[in-house]
Amino acid sequence: MWSYSREVNYYETDRMGVIHHSNYLRILEEARMAWMEANLIPYPEIERQGIIVPFTESKATFISFLRFGDRFRVDMELYKFTGLRMHFRYKVYNETTGELCHEAETVHYTTTREDYKPTSVKRSHPELFEQLKALVHDSEKED
Amino acid sequence: MWSYSREVNYYETDRMGVIHHSNYLRILEEARMAWMEANLIPYPEIERQGIIVPFTESKATFISFLRFGDRFRVDMELYKFTGLRMHFRYKVYNETTGELCHEAETVHYTTTREDYKPTSVKRSHPELFEQLKALVHDSEKED
Amino acid sequence: MWSYSREVNYYETDRMGVIHHSNYLRILEEARMAWMEANLIPYPEIERQGIIVPFTESKATFISFLRFGDRFRVDMELYKFTGLRMHFRYKVYNETTGELCHEAETVHYTTTREDYKPTSVKRSHPELFEQLKALVHDSEKED
Amino acid sequence: MWSYSREVNYYETDRMGVIHHSNYLRILEEARMAWMEANLIPYPEIERQGIIVPFTESKATFISFLRFGDRFRVDMELYKFTGLRMHFRYKVYNETTGELCHEAETVHYTTTREDYKPTSVKRSHPELFEQLKALVHDSEKED
Repeated sequence: MWSYSREVNYYETDRMGVIHHSNYLRILEEARMAWMEANLIPYPEIERQGIIVPFTESKATFISFLRFGDRFRVDMELYKFTGLRMHFRYKVYNETTGELCHEAETVHYTTTREDYKPTSVKRSHPELFEQLKALVHDSEKED
Repeated sequence: MWSYSREVNYYETDRMGVIHHSNYLRILEEARMAWMEANLIPYPEIERQGIIVPFTESKATFISFLRFGDRFRVDMELYKFTGLRMHFRYKVYNETTGELCHEAETVHYTTTREDYKPTSVKRSHPELFEQLKALVHDSEKED
Repeated sequence: MWSYSREVNYYETDRMGVIHHSNYLRILEEARMAWMEANLIPYPEIERQGIIVPFTESKATFISFLRFGDRFRVDMELYKFTGLRMHFRYKVYNETTGELCHEAETVHYTTTREDYKPTSVKRSHPELFEQLKALVHDSEKED
Repeated sequence: MWSYSREVNYYETDRMGVIHHSNYLRILEEARMAWMEANLIPYPEIERQGIIVPFTESKATFISFLRFGDRFRVDMELYKFTGLRMHFRYKVYNETTGELCHEAETVHYTTTREDYKPTSVKRSHPELFEQLKALVHDSEKED
């Protein structure tokens, strides 16, 4: 798993005193962008190469609460890549207590088309395509 | 199905020129609050009665894009209530084109505890409990 | 003054139990978009005519708090238009208590250029230009 | 001046392809929280000591645009402290180009009261009070 970590921002909390549930998808996006910058190429560069990566599916469980003053860690992996669709898995932990706060999966697809219809980048961007395939790791399938 | 409808806000769009995926959970929350106000009692009143309704699960498919200038409609229903957990289902349509943009399910539970552990309100708030049961309608089970 | 009104959204609150200060600029944008749709032409239409209206200055005082369950009203006016720059003034009231919560001014300019440098629309869009001039009303200058 | 720096988040952009103006107040809050953690005590700790610091005034100029892919730097200082009110000044730069993007001032006050009315912490929290006074630095008054 690869990790992204930061403090909870004040403006992310709500009147329950915890991170509002709608902010997790933004946190996962930050983690994903940092993951791409560290393991692949930065997403701004992917876009400059004419590839867009729209968001198509999400699934999430909200287990325990993160509060202002907490530091969290997102452990994530690209567990599947079909050649068109990328499947990411995330676990968000409270770094201080070690508690699991949030589990999620997100699915994305590549497109080089103006109408955003899915297109494989296997022929147009072979190097990036191979890098993505090499990054696939499903820890739930480990022996 | 019950409906909630409004225009896309400019600040909800992103550099792809469409509603950023992280804003749908906020839109669904608006719809849910309006649904409660119309069909049950307003959520501020539910909170005043000592009940909190934490968000516990979500699932969503992002089908087509909503843009600034579009008006959308959220069709939603409470399709299941276990006595502890409420299951909502939503379809978000572009009102101008009729296109289906987004499908989602969210799960919530009731609690009257300070540690937010789930508690049924069957005994503490019997009227609200019965109202919720009466509102359950699963259109996918229709004959 | 022209008015825009709605309920506070749950996701707009923070751990102090009030609207987070950073959400007011979004609320004022909603008000401004509604003002344009009602008094001028909808902003999406202004954009389709090749005009963009970047945000250039803001000033605000946060007087009393809005909470979840409150309904607010934004009273606003275009108090000055220099031919390039639009100056709006806003007062946000708690509709239930009548309390003044927030006062603000925002300044915007028109541009038809790709580099977003200010351009007057007097020659390119004379009808829109005259409509804007006719909408100017400074209630603080009233006798 | 003290500095806070990070990349622009994708979800902070809007359909103009730039940071939406409403996100600057969130960025300035992050900078302020980091400033307190580095120079004073972390804000969560300030709150634990029974002090809240509500936001009361802001003023801002939006000069040039920050885009996805940019890294920005917030240079900030506490330029005035009246014993009740803290005045911060900020300049946000595009770190790559060196361009000045945004200038702002924010005012905050201390309170230990449940009704959030301003109270000085000179007697209740003398150490924190003196630390704040010692941090005041107005670079615009420099010789």
